[in-house]
Amino acid sequence: MNHVDVIIIGGGFAGVSAARKLYRAGKSFLILEARDRLGGRVYTKDIADGIPLDLGGQWIGPTQDRMYELVEEYGIETYPTYIKGKSVMDLNKKISTYTGLIPKVDPISLIYIDITIKRLNRMAQSIDTQAPWSHPKAAKWDAMTLSSYISKHVKTKKARSIMITAMETVLACAPEEVSLLHVLFYIRSGKDIDTLLNIENGAQQDRIRGGMQGVVEHMSVGFEDRILYNAAVKSIKQSESQCTVRTEDHTYYSSKVVVAIPPILAGRIQCDPPLSLDKRQVFQKIPMGIVVKCYAIYKQPFWRQAGFSGEVVTDEHSPYQTIFDNAAEDADYGMLMGFALADRATQLMRLSQLDRKALMIKTLERYFGAQSKDIWMYEDLCWAEEEFSQGCYTGYFPTGVWTRYKDALRTVEGNIHWAGTETATVWNGYIEGAVRSGERAAQEILTS
Amino acid sequence: MNHVDVIIIGGGFAGVSAARKLYRAGKSFLILEARDRLGGRVYTKDIADGIPLDLGGQWIGPTQDRMYELVEEYGIETYPTYIKGKSVMDLNKKISTYTGLIPKVDPISLIYIDITIKRLNRMAQSIDTQAPWSHPKAAKWDAMTLSSYISKHVKTKKARSIMITAMETVLACAPEEVSLLHVLFYIRSGKDIDTLLNIENGAQQDRIRGGMQGVVEHMSVGFEDRILYNAAVKSIKQSESQCTVRTEDHTYYSSKVVVAIPPILAGRIQCDPPLSLDKRQVFQKIPMGIVVKCYAIYKQPFWRQAGFSGEVVTDEHSPYQTIFDNAAEDADYGMLMGFALADRATQLMRLSQLDRKALMIKTLERYFGAQSKDIWMYEDLCWAEEEFSQGCYTGYFPTGVWTRYKDALRTVEGNIHWAGTETATVWNGYIEGAVRSGERAAQEILTS
Repeated sequence: MNHVDVIIIGGGFAGVSAARKLYRAGKSFLILEARDRLGGRVYTKDIADGIPLDLGGQWIGPTQDRMYELVEEYGIETYPTYIKGKSVMDLNKKISTYTGLIPKVDPISLIYIDITIKRLNRMAQSIDTQAPWSHPKAAKWDAMTLSSYISKHVKTKKARSIMITAMETVLACAPEEVSLLHVLFYIRSGKDIDTLLNIENGAQQDRIRGGMQGVVEHMSVGFEDRILYNAAVKSIKQSESQCTVRTEDHTYYSSKVVVAIPPILAGRIQCDPPLSLDKRQVFQKIPMGIVVKCYAIYKQPFWRQAGFSGEVVTDEHSPYQTIFDNAAEDADYGMLMGFALADRATQLMRLSQLDRKALMIKTLERYFGAQSKDIWMYEDLCWAEEEFSQGCYTGYFPTGVWTRYKDALRTVEGNIHWAGTETATVWNGYIEGAVRSGERAAQEILTS
Repeated sequence: MNHVDVIIIGGGFAGVSAARKLYRAGKSFLILEARDRLGGRVYTKDIADGIPLDLGGQWIGPTQDRMYELVEEYGIETYPTYIKGKSVMDLNKKISTYTGLIPKVDPISLIYIDITIKRLNRMAQSIDTQAPWSHPKAAKWDAMTLSSYISKHVKTKKARSIMITAMETVLACAPEEVSLLHVLFYIRSGKDIDTLLNIENGAQQDRIRGGMQGVVEHMSVGFEDRILYNAAVKSIKQSESQCTVRTEDHTYYSSKVVVAIPPILAGRIQCDPPLSLDKRQVFQKIPMGIVVKCYAIYKQPFWRQAGFSGEVVTDEHSPYQTIFDNAAEDADYGMLMGFALADRATQLMRLSQLDRKALMIKTLERYFGAQSKDIWMYEDLCWAEEEFSQGCYTGYFPTGVWTRYKDALRTVEGNIHWAGTETATVWNGYIEGAVRSGERAAQEILTS
């Protein structure tokens, strides 16, 4: 009666991608979503006057093929990230501007940055993203942190500051916290550092008109009635013939289960029989990154008129690693978005929201002048405070985890399959990776 | 009606120590314990013929003052770990024997080991265990793994193997997984490496007659009726005047709460209002070590008659880092206990229990001869498989955690206080640390 072919836990891009594939294959299924909305780490909030704020994942870029296919399939409009004009660099408490890709830094530091990026890219290209642990140097690279690598190879303080800001922007964790091998895997899964960092021809190239959450909503059209909200799963019981999935109030039955939530949350679901030791170990050992997205919204994008792109790159003296103009070129309002990541996120969240707003205004004033004070609205969201995400962008691997637990995150356990961007081998950590992981999990079930 | 002064979550040594102190101060309290027994990571199982097997924590040693005081207070008998005779060293697949503390290794390797231990000890002595993050070199040491340190400073393969085995035996995690700063803190909190490694005058000096669980049971005499078993806590709600603590089936009310369980499990309790961001981050980032204790029990301690102490030290070719004679000198049976830790634990648990038994017999045969085949009983326990521990001996800090989150593990949050050996500054990770942490949490409440 209550039995479906597949229960999908989590209604983010991974879960909905799995559902979409099963739907088209004529399978019966149910999505159990803990929140009252789809999207997971993608969340578009409409504020006053119907302005859509992407408080979670928001970009797509070249080689994210599945995302562009989805956008095309549903006739969703995209627009390029605004980049016209000069960018701001805030380094060692001094502000400078530049155009193009290369900020104004002393030549020695520039050379160190260039060499380090090229070296990391070259190392990353040698990684098999299906099996990073199989690399001849995997043991060495997994035993050291990204910080150890940067300390050894980047010799000027300025170059180190810029490299750290750049890598924190990509990873949402501090270089001290993450395995070098994981960083190389992550770079490789999204092609190279340049692709991860760039706007044009990079991962920050395009935005979704109306907000990213619209994409996942389009994807669910036709099976909206198979989605249950406010349904946080507490336990999964497997017998030979059936899976029993419990939320606080209800029990559901299926032949298969797809778990499409972050590892840290997957580890909190009680499983009977217990999962393999490797799976339980890896769930203990992959924490989530930490990001705060901060929005200053203005009646006018006054910086554009002054020749600024709105893009800011900083070192550790700024509360944000980077700032973007986050509205379409034709928007009739102005929107600057600051990313506070890793330690800067933690520090920022020690302030009240009122103080965070004041800090953002003060910071923008330094970059774009007195008009910054004339703010219309402020919004922010710290993803580490979200009970049903526990962090963003993604789970990261500390030292020693890849070489020990290999592909344990995505190994099938009886009738339980595993999705989520952390399980992806292409664009791991991105929405593209989530989509691919969901489709892979659905495919496993369809061919089993 | 159901209201008590304090609810204590967890009936291990930390929780029961807190309870004992509150009991003597005349406070009302309730211990909610998830298992059907006291002890947590201490667990004494009586097998056939009343032989007590300590499947969890089992030792006390000099400077563990609170443990010796408790043992004396309750008139509990102790006995020294058996060490008479020659020990076995299994290095590079070759077996040798030695007496005293220093195994037979080439002099160059011995010198490297000696220098490394002295250096680590010297670094550890400079750590303030109340605030390891305040050390001038904290940032550097917390950005690197113990593995990076050993690779750099220990130049012969043999010396490295021995250092790794020794440190894995102390930490129950691999050197790749742990921050050097944490290792130094851990060494300091138990005095020095020698104290942590040694039997005589070290942390493995004395055993408890009848098993370690007896101590915690003695400690609870008088308030047995205030302990509820099979009561795993799901949520804590704090209002200004009251804490509401829920298990699956029941709700309890108190003024204060003491959480005395490992960080990974504390992170799974839903708190309303949510805990501070730092606390939630640190709960994500401290995984548990992994240990399997394996027991081969014989009708006779035949190795003793052959002049062996039963102690074995190995390198990575053995399934166990170390083996001990785990019975009192006057026992009328023989008992060898093998410790499989970190990767060796994971590998061992890929075998069935039957194969683990066969492997232990085969291994002991190599060390102690053909009589090893004549086994009476075999028992083992993998602590990472224990739902209500998730690992042993203790939670370890990966790189970057100490310098970021400082004392977040033990910071009071409203009316919630935090105990558990992971919060201890003296003998962190040991039963002694658990006792001190519980007493510290109770003291916080008594003086608040």
